Amino acid sequence: MVKKIKKINAAILIIGNEILSGRTQDKNVAFISNWLNSQCGISVDEVRIIPDKNKVIVKNIRSLSNKFKYVFTTGGIGPTHDDITALSISNAFKVKYEYHKEAYNILEKYYGKKKFNDGRKKMAKMPRGAKLIYNPSSAAPGFITKNVISLPGVPSILNSMIENCKKFLIKGLKVHSKTLNLYTVESNISKKLGIIQKKFSKSVDIGSYPFFRLGKIGVSIVTRSTSLAKLKSVNKELLKIIKEKKIQILKI
Amino acid sequence: MVKKIKKINAAILIIGNEILSGRTQDKNVAFISNWLNSQCGISVDEVRIIPDKNKVIVKNIRSLSNKFKYVFTTGGIGPTHDDITALSISNAFKVKYEYHKEAYNILEKYYGKKKFNDGRKKMAKMPRGAKLIYNPSSAAPGFITKNVISLPGVPSILNSMIENCKKFLIKGLKVHSKTLNLYTVESNISKKLGIIQKKFSKSVDIGSYPFFRLGKIGVSIVTRSTSLAKLKSVNKELLKIIKEKKIQILKI
Repeated sequence: MVKKIKKINAAILIIGNEILSGRTQDKNVAFISNWLNSQCGISVDEVRIIPDKNKVIVKNIRSLSNKFKYVFTTGGIGPTHDDITALSISNAFKVKYEYHKEAYNILEKYYGKKKFNDGRKKMAKMPRGAKLIYNPSSAAPGFITKNVISLPGVPSILNSMIENCKKFLIKGLKVHSKTLNLYTVESNISKKLGIIQKKFSKSVDIGSYPFFRLGKIGVSIVTRSTSLAKLKSVNKELLKIIKEKKIQILKI
Repeated sequence: MVKKIKKINAAILIIGNEILSGRTQDKNVAFISNWLNSQCGISVDEVRIIPDKNKVIVKNIRSLSNKFKYVFTTGGIGPTHDDITALSISNAFKVKYEYHKEAYNILEKYYGKKKFNDGRKKMAKMPRGAKLIYNPSSAAPGFITKNVISLPGVPSILNSMIENCKKFLIKGLKVHSKTLNLYTVESNISKKLGIIQKKFSKSVDIGSYPFFRLGKIGVSIVTRSTSLAKLKSVNKELLKIIKEKKIQILKI
């Protein structure tokens, strides 16, 4: 029996006042989304950035976990008062917020009994039933509660943990993509692009993104599809237009 | 009569598959949020990133414009088939999607009558009743529809237009902030931080963010308040703890 592989989606929930205030530039969205796409065939269909407020987190966890196959949260799992992600997820799913035995042992071993203070112990508190996502760089584990995967906010630590999420995820169809960087303006090709997009509306996504390089204006045409054959057909039609209009392709 | 200035909030809605897929790193959230904070006393309380899909845009415009004083959208106002922000906002507010006379004239003048093709004309189509936000770098205007302000996705163009949004915004109380960068670990101060946060829970937000610099671990304590006096009180208490614990302050 052949297993049918479906489109699998995810949402990312960035929890943190420092991102909302503009103090810190988020880097986790692009990293997680690229990884999910290329490694798991999972597409991110929505991102939200919200403050460290229990009510707001609870509401968003409930709505996103209902709507998407997976929800990735980042931030709020450290030792300080503003780290409330684990507590809020417990509230969202109405499960106990308690010490996770294995996480407790990992952290106690990492810090040593004497230095295992209240702040550090807090990082072992999780929603009841959570499974651990191991952290090879700074010990404190992430965790998965139902379909919600909670990771830290510091990009280098998050990046080191992402591979450990894989075993919890069902893979989807890989999305292939091709980019053509053209030295032209969008409006020069917008009409023809629209016609091609209409023709392949069910199988290929065509995106058009202006860029500036070395004082010249250009546009990147990004095509994305789970079907390599359809992707090739679309790019064949694109190249025909490019040739007709004598547009220069930029090689990067 | 003294006008009472209230806390004024905003949401940012980033419209674009290229951000969701991780292909492009968003830079507009940090820019807009910093500008709103520092120039207008407006705090961004939620950000969403969504795909170029009419239904999704309509739903998010309706819910965010109800919930927040202002909504800033970025992306989707160019000449190609995937630029549907203006159409979707028209749908969300059930108003006509039509040529904006002044925008049409601006664009026709900018491109010249001969080069003013269908793609470029599309950039003059807006929700009926929209007011223009002028664009000093590439002519195509942004627009404001009720409390929704629509800007382009290209950061350099957006940045050049942001000052032109000011006249449409009611200003809020300025949020003051102070950052202490400490060479210590979060868990060393988490307990005391929690106590101070509790004491000033109504007036000051205290955030704690780990960092790595030159091989050393540190933590930034960011305090934010509309009251400069309260902010000073909190920082006095913080400095007391720092002295007690003999923590080194990093000067940047």
